[in-house]
Amino acid sequence: MALIVHKYGGTSMGSTERIRNVAKRVAKWARAGHQIVVVPSAMSGETNRLLGLAKELAPAKPDTSYSRELDMLASTGEQASSALLAIALQSEGQPSVSYAGWQVPIKTNSAFTKARIESIDDVRVRADLNAGKVVIITGFQGVDEQGNITTLGRGGSDTSAVAVAAALKADECLIYTDVDGVYTTDPRVVPEARRLQTVSFEEMLEMASLGSKVLQIRSVEFAGKYKVPMRVLSSFTPWDIDINEEAASGTLITFEEDEQMEQAVVSGIAFNRDEAKISVLGVPDKPGIAYQILGAVADANIEVDVIIQNLSKDGKTDFSFTVHRNDYAKTIDLLKEKVLPSLGATEVSGDAKICKVSIVGIGMRSHVGVASKMFRSLSEEGINIQMISTSEIKTSVVIDEKYMELAVRALHKAFDLDQA
Amino acid sequence: MALIVHKYGGTSMGSTERIRNVAKRVAKWARAGHQIVVVPSAMSGETNRLLGLAKELAPAKPDTSYSRELDMLASTGEQASSALLAIALQSEGQPSVSYAGWQVPIKTNSAFTKARIESIDDVRVRADLNAGKVVIITGFQGVDEQGNITTLGRGGSDTSAVAVAAALKADECLIYTDVDGVYTTDPRVVPEARRLQTVSFEEMLEMASLGSKVLQIRSVEFAGKYKVPMRVLSSFTPWDIDINEEAASGTLITFEEDEQMEQAVVSGIAFNRDEAKISVLGVPDKPGIAYQILGAVADANIEVDVIIQNLSKDGKTDFSFTVHRNDYAKTIDLLKEKVLPSLGATEVSGDAKICKVSIVGIGMRSHVGVASKMFRSLSEEGINIQMISTSEIKTSVVIDEKYMELAVRALHKAFDLDQA
Repeated sequence: MALIVHKYGGTSMGSTERIRNVAKRVAKWARAGHQIVVVPSAMSGETNRLLGLAKELAPAKPDTSYSRELDMLASTGEQASSALLAIALQSEGQPSVSYAGWQVPIKTNSAFTKARIESIDDVRVRADLNAGKVVIITGFQGVDEQGNITTLGRGGSDTSAVAVAAALKADECLIYTDVDGVYTTDPRVVPEARRLQTVSFEEMLEMASLGSKVLQIRSVEFAGKYKVPMRVLSSFTPWDIDINEEAASGTLITFEEDEQMEQAVVSGIAFNRDEAKISVLGVPDKPGIAYQILGAVADANIEVDVIIQNLSKDGKTDFSFTVHRNDYAKTIDLLKEKVLPSLGATEVSGDAKICKVSIVGIGMRSHVGVASKMFRSLSEEGINIQMISTSEIKTSVVIDEKYMELAVRALHKAFDLDQA
Repeated sequence: MALIVHKYGGTSMGSTERIRNVAKRVAKWARAGHQIVVVPSAMSGETNRLLGLAKELAPAKPDTSYSRELDMLASTGEQASSALLAIALQSEGQPSVSYAGWQVPIKTNSAFTKARIESIDDVRVRADLNAGKVVIITGFQGVDEQGNITTLGRGGSDTSAVAVAAALKADECLIYTDVDGVYTTDPRVVPEARRLQTVSFEEMLEMASLGSKVLQIRSVEFAGKYKVPMRVLSSFTPWDIDINEEAASGTLITFEEDEQMEQAVVSGIAFNRDEAKISVLGVPDKPGIAYQILGAVADANIEVDVIIQNLSKDGKTDFSFTVHRNDYAKTIDLLKEKVLPSLGATEVSGDAKICKVSIVGIGMRSHVGVASKMFRSLSEEGINIQMISTSEIKTSVVIDEKYMELAVRALHKAFDLDQA
């Protein structure tokens, strides 16, 4: 008998038919003798519907209390889907009970719309589990010290599930989603992409932050911090497949690097076209320029990703960085108005049509020449690299957007990711 | 400065446009220096949508925990509309905060789907009112001793509003609805029907129980118990009408009978066609037959309204009563199968095409001949009376459904209700 947390996304909960399927699957696990806690998202579309209504009524100048009300509003989506799942489970003859975040309670700080979990009380949940009930806990939400409802922000249900699993010291946290695991890269771009049986926590962290949308990055961080074994698997397999087969399906996120003697050098290729490149040209090369440029950007609440400072020439240098594409125009304006004059730089230029492609692999730590193999492979395809950024277990390049698919396919092949 | 509770029904909250109108109206009252608590219903259609989803998933055999989940589900409707109203108020520049039942808290017993309010804590609400905020409290719901969400049953938002007004010792509870007050009878049946400026609590109680749908009967009982001044008025007047005009509009439900020297004998005509008549014929006239018949009906959870036992003849009598039309077939079957054999009665007959018409008036207490005037008036129209039931302040008759409008119009005229 194991204690297992199941998390189902909005698509898996998208209709009463799908909720019934989730109930049948959960009931199967409970019948097999496991203690099951389920963390469901709101039915797909529901959160957007609610926030859409709020937007129609929203004050021109949002303040803190407005955020509080947004959380009161948005949290109803998960409360409704959780109650519906409890009803569906009882319909299957499986005793169950649903709890809103405040009933557990899941305590958070008071940062409305982006709260952070502080503690989870397991007393009530354990009592119900011991009484043979499936316990359903609303994802995405909690309660602050003053008894206000808070939400964790978009995708927060993954984080709720992992946090609940950590608090209960669950044996595994199963993230049921509309894909059947973590792939070496996006199969829509590379048909030969392979599902990974396991991926290390650190690799998953890089992949999540590099644009793979399978898991919310906060949930991966949480899993890493509390060493929660986490598996990504499909909610669209027939609910009545053999439970052992299901338990071994998808991708397991592991913490023991040494499990495998021979670690693959590169585990996956991540990519995204959410960024834009901005260059400040002809900057006098003196101490403090990076702060002068990026400080102003940070003050405007704009996140910066890749940063490159070129070698100086004649006392001048070029300084480049990437921001989210949504912040592109705003950043250019900001630099022109506020930074360029005081900096004595000659020009700001930018390119929104770029993409970032990354190779990720924990094996890169102990292998030399991985990055140069990447560069050679891109060069053979005639792809010019605009920026490079590296960490211990990943190498990212910024290239022209139009080469994205070509680059991903070339790298997937170069690192033999199509072979098991 | 007064402390006033506003209650808005589902139709008044039916769209973002209407919610914005409610916000403008509430903000007007707050600007006039009043402390305002608002109790909104769910947006119209929302509760039905949620319960419809539950029905699709519902267990064949509902049990207690299923009711608990229904309350978790249904309570989200009011939580969402309350948060939306708070956002709309802030958009009008009016500070406001919304609370779910458990946050106030509104404590109830654990009778899920039909809970009764036990206590309301006013500490949090008063602090917010004193800080200049409009406080929005979700209608229809509360929390039980174990921290489970409960709902008060259909129409429970009226009851919530009156209970909150009682707990806060509010100066008045304004029930905003889609009609502009309580009428002498339904204006769709009698175009000459007049809006009553005031109606006594006891009359309102009879009218509510006799089929007038303006107010939920439990809310009237509550208002009576705690002497909460309650006014029914329209939410469809322009929000910016003069506040004194608005404060005097609609119908005030009063507790001081003696306010008016000359009380109208009859205040209104109520009617409904929700009932069906059932007669058990040829019952041996001996002690205990009423219990034998109605005990079986009550055991089947069927409510009985009017009851008539005829004079006995040759040791036999006829016994008639009315039930809700939905229970008609079930009651007939029950009597035939379980009661008739042991009772020695000869026959069960019934008529679903009946209606009940009632005159209501606190002045009936001190006036004789009111009932006979009613009977004469019906007789002059050639309407046969099938059953009669009386209380201190009302007289009801059961007649053929087809005469309903005719009877209501005749009585409205006979008692001069078309004249102020």
